[in-house]
Amino acid sequence: MDRLAELRAGLDERGCEALLVLARSSQETDLAPFAGKARLGDCQLVVPREEGPAFLAYLTPMEREEAAATGLCLITPEHLDLIRWQDLAAEPGEVMAWIMERSLKAAGVSPGRVALAGYGQAGIIQAASAALSRKGWSWVPGNSLVLAVRKRKTAAEVSAIRAAADGAADAMRRVAARLAAAMVRDGELWLEGERLTVARLRSEAGQALAARGLEQPKGNILAPAEEGGVPHSSGTQDRVLRAGESIVVDLFPRGAMFADCTRTFCLPHPDQPPSPALRRAHDLVLAVLEHAHLRARPGVRGWDLQEEVCALFESNGYPTLSSDPATTRGYVHGLGHGVGFDLHEQPVFRKMTGAEGVLREGDVFTLEPGLYDPAEGYGVRLEDLVHLGQEGPENLTSLPYEMDPRGWV
Amino acid sequence: MDRLAELRAGLDERGCEALLVLARSSQETDLAPFAGKARLGDCQLVVPREEGPAFLAYLTPMEREEAAATGLCLITPEHLDLIRWQDLAAEPGEVMAWIMERSLKAAGVSPGRVALAGYGQAGIIQAASAALSRKGWSWVPGNSLVLAVRKRKTAAEVSAIRAAADGAADAMRRVAARLAAAMVRDGELWLEGERLTVARLRSEAGQALAARGLEQPKGNILAPAEEGGVPHSSGTQDRVLRAGESIVVDLFPRGAMFADCTRTFCLPHPDQPPSPALRRAHDLVLAVLEHAHLRARPGVRGWDLQEEVCALFESNGYPTLSSDPATTRGYVHGLGHGVGFDLHEQPVFRKMTGAEGVLREGDVFTLEPGLYDPAEGYGVRLEDLVHLGQEGPENLTSLPYEMDPRGWV
Repeated sequence: MDRLAELRAGLDERGCEALLVLARSSQETDLAPFAGKARLGDCQLVVPREEGPAFLAYLTPMEREEAAATGLCLITPEHLDLIRWQDLAAEPGEVMAWIMERSLKAAGVSPGRVALAGYGQAGIIQAASAALSRKGWSWVPGNSLVLAVRKRKTAAEVSAIRAAADGAADAMRRVAARLAAAMVRDGELWLEGERLTVARLRSEAGQALAARGLEQPKGNILAPAEEGGVPHSSGTQDRVLRAGESIVVDLFPRGAMFADCTRTFCLPHPDQPPSPALRRAHDLVLAVLEHAHLRARPGVRGWDLQEEVCALFESNGYPTLSSDPATTRGYVHGLGHGVGFDLHEQPVFRKMTGAEGVLREGDVFTLEPGLYDPAEGYGVRLEDLVHLGQEGPENLTSLPYEMDPRGWV
Repeated sequence: MDRLAELRAGLDERGCEALLVLARSSQETDLAPFAGKARLGDCQLVVPREEGPAFLAYLTPMEREEAAATGLCLITPEHLDLIRWQDLAAEPGEVMAWIMERSLKAAGVSPGRVALAGYGQAGIIQAASAALSRKGWSWVPGNSLVLAVRKRKTAAEVSAIRAAADGAADAMRRVAARLAAAMVRDGELWLEGERLTVARLRSEAGQALAARGLEQPKGNILAPAEEGGVPHSSGTQDRVLRAGESIVVDLFPRGAMFADCTRTFCLPHPDQPPSPALRRAHDLVLAVLEHAHLRARPGVRGWDLQEEVCALFESNGYPTLSSDPATTRGYVHGLGHGVGFDLHEQPVFRKMTGAEGVLREGDVFTLEPGLYDPAEGYGVRLEDLVHLGQEGPENLTSLPYEMDPRGWV
């Protein structure tokens, strides 16, 4: 079933006449699944419940060609009569209401129940939707509808995710190479005559990603020792790295789509070897990741995998959120999440009863077991990106798992 | 007058009891002016009209320290009783309505008229605001209120803009150095044994920005010849650069804040010199930019500068939007725009009657005259970033204007 057909089934279920997606850019997560690679500014998408084309309203005459490249049925700025509205210097909420109503009507939708999705300015959305409510339109939240239909990725989308994953792998290798090249002096890492800091590794990763045309809109994590012992910490810039400590490197760049991968490094030194606790944690996390790879198949529920992984960690003596919901030691987060238009999307690995919690062919998601001990001062996480393809599961993260960066070179 | 006092005056004027800002991250443009450097996920800000503190509601217990760093009065996840709501598996619109109402009440605001700002998911904002309307709350669009108070930048914000501007200048110098190092063969530029493409220059600029920790969330422009002849074009990746043609390079990276600068290059060759039309356009654009620098002072209206600049171009024989609103040749865009939390904010250089159109001390904005000729196949734009400081205007773009990149090295 294609994305529009799936959407229409959802509209039917909710008794809606159409889906309306508001967007300030065609790259936004609720619009991109329908616009492909086109790059437009403010625009709106209408998908009527009735069989037929989807409609794209765009607001800037200069964007005619980009709009045409979407293959959608176009509603032009001229049809929206925007110049007249600009001349009236109307309130932004009034202009938004006009565009919404005119777009819906151009798509053949009469006043009725509409699923509303996309993003925008809160005050303007409130004003516009309330004004249209007074004219016979009614609204149902529609973001979850779009979230559901963007779960399964097209071949072109998987290619874009693969390109981002390859760039992330490049950047991870560059980080490994810099760590491997470091000298140890009084326990601290030195590179090119300076102490090696989180900031330096972060800059190296950023440059490697930029060389591939990738951005980091949500930042990254480069968290040594006690900082990596808390999964939420992103790492302090001027922190100097030390031999024998864990360094969690989690990169989640975006090109046309997002990717996500994590490795945990430790540069050993005869005087500062990794602690037995860190070695043991790394070995176990890798074993659990390998188990998760074998189990992540179409039809499996993410929450079931999460529970299996918790059982594995617990049987090895580590607390988990399952045995102690308040623990900050042991395995303290979810096993994975869908990745693509956004960094976190479906499938989900939380306790869910619906389709959003079941792995299916076409899904792209992370598997990322980890172990943390803030008191001992270590964190370990290994994260791969998986695509459940027609030919079977594909690991999009082609990187070693080794903790010692010298093994990477 | 400080930002909160200015906001309160605006609330007074609109008869509102409070401002409520919705945000999915503390870095969003409507929330960052109040949160400083803190990095939080979903959060909401309440500014009551009555004298007193502003309130920040945050949703993730792990973010306690980040939230405290804002210096705002905190409304905790515990106070919002979020775990109970998560357990109820309520609709996202219901949860949002709960958080909005609970935050407003925690800030001492009773049901009444509230200015609504920030960004979010359209369907959820509609559902939450409509549910609260039924409970005695009413809404006024508030985004424009925040837009107005973030016009004037604090010293810390100007520092952050300066850091981004310095990074952009770095990247521009790297682009110039690569162009200067190119060889010309049959009119095409070659570098390191390969034809020099837009993609290569874009990658160089991206790496230079990444080395400074800067992102390009809105992309960039590297537009040669006929592509640069249309201000909207961002440049085709595999386009090979040629001697004698114009190359518009417009970089607008973001660190904690945005910056924006443009230069136009042309690598000459005895067989492919820049056309006299291109030379003349570049000379005139530079003269107009220098004029604009002299005229951009506190109290001056952006639109008046725009009209002056149009008159200068017209007296030199170029059409402008002022003489011909449909022209695609000559001077076809505005003279500048405010820069900071977003790439385009106040002051504005359009025809406006309010304070948003008047330059004031503390403002940061671009000055960017340009000349375009799609038929002749050239574009020229020179763009500096200006801060109107207490000590007078400061040009934050310290770069040569020269068209020949060999003059930059």
